[in-house]
Amino acid sequence: MKPIFIFPTFIFLFISLAFSDDLPSWRNTESKEKILQFISAVQDENSSQYVKVEDRIAVFDNDGTLWSEQPVYFQFFYIIDYIRENYEVHPEWATDKRLKNIYEKGVKGLEDLDEHDILHLVSITHAYQDIESFSQSIKQWIEKAKHPEKNKLYTEMVFQPMLELINYLHDNDFKVWIVSGGGLDFMRAWAPQTYNIPTENIIGSTLKSEYKILDNKPIIFKLPEIEFLDDKEGKPIAIQKYIGKKPILGVGNSDGDYAMLEWISQNENNLTLLIHHTDDQREYAYDKHSPIGRLDKGLNVNQPNWLIIDMKKDWDKIYP
Amino acid sequence: MKPIFIFPTFIFLFISLAFSDDLPSWRNTESKEKILQFISAVQDENSSQYVKVEDRIAVFDNDGTLWSEQPVYFQFFYIIDYIRENYEVHPEWATDKRLKNIYEKGVKGLEDLDEHDILHLVSITHAYQDIESFSQSIKQWIEKAKHPEKNKLYTEMVFQPMLELINYLHDNDFKVWIVSGGGLDFMRAWAPQTYNIPTENIIGSTLKSEYKILDNKPIIFKLPEIEFLDDKEGKPIAIQKYIGKKPILGVGNSDGDYAMLEWISQNENNLTLLIHHTDDQREYAYDKHSPIGRLDKGLNVNQPNWLIIDMKKDWDKIYP
Repeated sequence: MKPIFIFPTFIFLFISLAFSDDLPSWRNTESKEKILQFISAVQDENSSQYVKVEDRIAVFDNDGTLWSEQPVYFQFFYIIDYIRENYEVHPEWATDKRLKNIYEKGVKGLEDLDEHDILHLVSITHAYQDIESFSQSIKQWIEKAKHPEKNKLYTEMVFQPMLELINYLHDNDFKVWIVSGGGLDFMRAWAPQTYNIPTENIIGSTLKSEYKILDNKPIIFKLPEIEFLDDKEGKPIAIQKYIGKKPILGVGNSDGDYAMLEWISQNENNLTLLIHHTDDQREYAYDKHSPIGRLDKGLNVNQPNWLIIDMKKDWDKIYP
Repeated sequence: MKPIFIFPTFIFLFISLAFSDDLPSWRNTESKEKILQFISAVQDENSSQYVKVEDRIAVFDNDGTLWSEQPVYFQFFYIIDYIRENYEVHPEWATDKRLKNIYEKGVKGLEDLDEHDILHLVSITHAYQDIESFSQSIKQWIEKAKHPEKNKLYTEMVFQPMLELINYLHDNDFKVWIVSGGGLDFMRAWAPQTYNIPTENIIGSTLKSEYKILDNKPIIFKLPEIEFLDDKEGKPIAIQKYIGKKPILGVGNSDGDYAMLEWISQNENNLTLLIHHTDDQREYAYDKHSPIGRLDKGLNVNQPNWLIIDMKKDWDKIYP
């Protein structure tokens, strides 16, 4: 090659690098710049922010952070659909006002239910079966069920900018975990394919379970009793229990994520992102007055490593 | 290079391949052959035993499987050493017969203690502190403390054949987990360096913990109450909870591992290994009459994928 040809090659390389974009659905705002800066510094052995590969742990909440959560957490739509689908073969359900209400009114039937009622619904739809059967039921549901307002599959209501961020973190040797208040077995049935996160990197709320032999086959059977609620202070506790170290990046969207983000952001080199739902056109707009995904405390934190992501301003695209 | 030189090069290559040995401390017995066959078949896309990389999960018990466990689980030696070291600054301990006994008699002071007493000892030595402080305490102890009978560091009492097996599994794209009845935080303080297994791949028994702010710093504080005993039926339950799928290889040594191995070996393509302590010269010899690491039920299983490893016969070397 003659020297004359080298020059345009370099120009071309320079241009493509300058315009290469690993987070194409993120607008070029300060938020994006800070995220990219953080991921870059973590890998720079000469930076005071350098982090060894084994400590590059990122945790994401799920409902409202990786996918939508309005008008109710999507796991509740499974409960509603399950009750409606099985109502006729369970004549005894008609005597239970809560079940009858949901059968007749759908989401509206969930109003005025207290914690005890919710656990009752979870038990009926999630427990008294082995994990494999439950997982199959979720898989069949999520393949077909559609969101009543957006008329999309639930897995089409994941946030494209978050999918890009997860991939970019993977590319940069981060281990990415989901830490959700949602049911562990519920998420594991679809999240691995949807987010490219393996089952063992998913943490969630759990029912108690028991190991038993049924028809000569050992199974793990879900019991109708809450074992652990992976929400609020439960999140840092669960991260410590499952992962055993503090993540360096935490992403959430509600006050249920506050303790997790507070814990992570206590180290000033770490980064925390809080997704603020501000887009009532493309998604939903809500914060401190929402019964689902309430965000109040988290909006008042003033720390350089506590970033509020404004969905309307920061995201060019919401759903894939 | 002249053709004449090629021939000896091939011969040399052939010889070194034939003698290359990934498990040098395992004698060339049927056990070793079956293990190597299994690991090889799992990777052979044309084999009915082929397993995708993401499902190549192996679980190992710790006490008695990865390191020795006699005359008592090594975690008890930490308890004894901790009580002896702190006895003088806790004059109130002298009024507690259990603590006084341990102070005076060491291991013998553990005799006749019931479950309630043991929890009491665990609480005093493991709880009422944040996980970081506890972890530091274990690290300092394990660097210096020596086994009273073998006069070795505890981390020198790991089994060389198991270290080789873990490495070989890693080389063949397995994810390797520890699933132990021992304390989760106890193991995480030293096991990652000792076995080359990251904190997030360690499952163990846990105390309850709470998230709280102390001196403006969020910490996770260990409470004096058992949360989960990762033993017997607890093992398959914990594996399901942490990993979310059934392993294809399980390794244990006592009836505490029975349920885990039963669950895994139910799939005939999976492999389970049970380490039988038969070497009273180089290690210890015990099974159904031992109060620690009792093995009885597991010895009576007759299944092609249930392998009893005879330490005396199968292992050329025990400690590194």
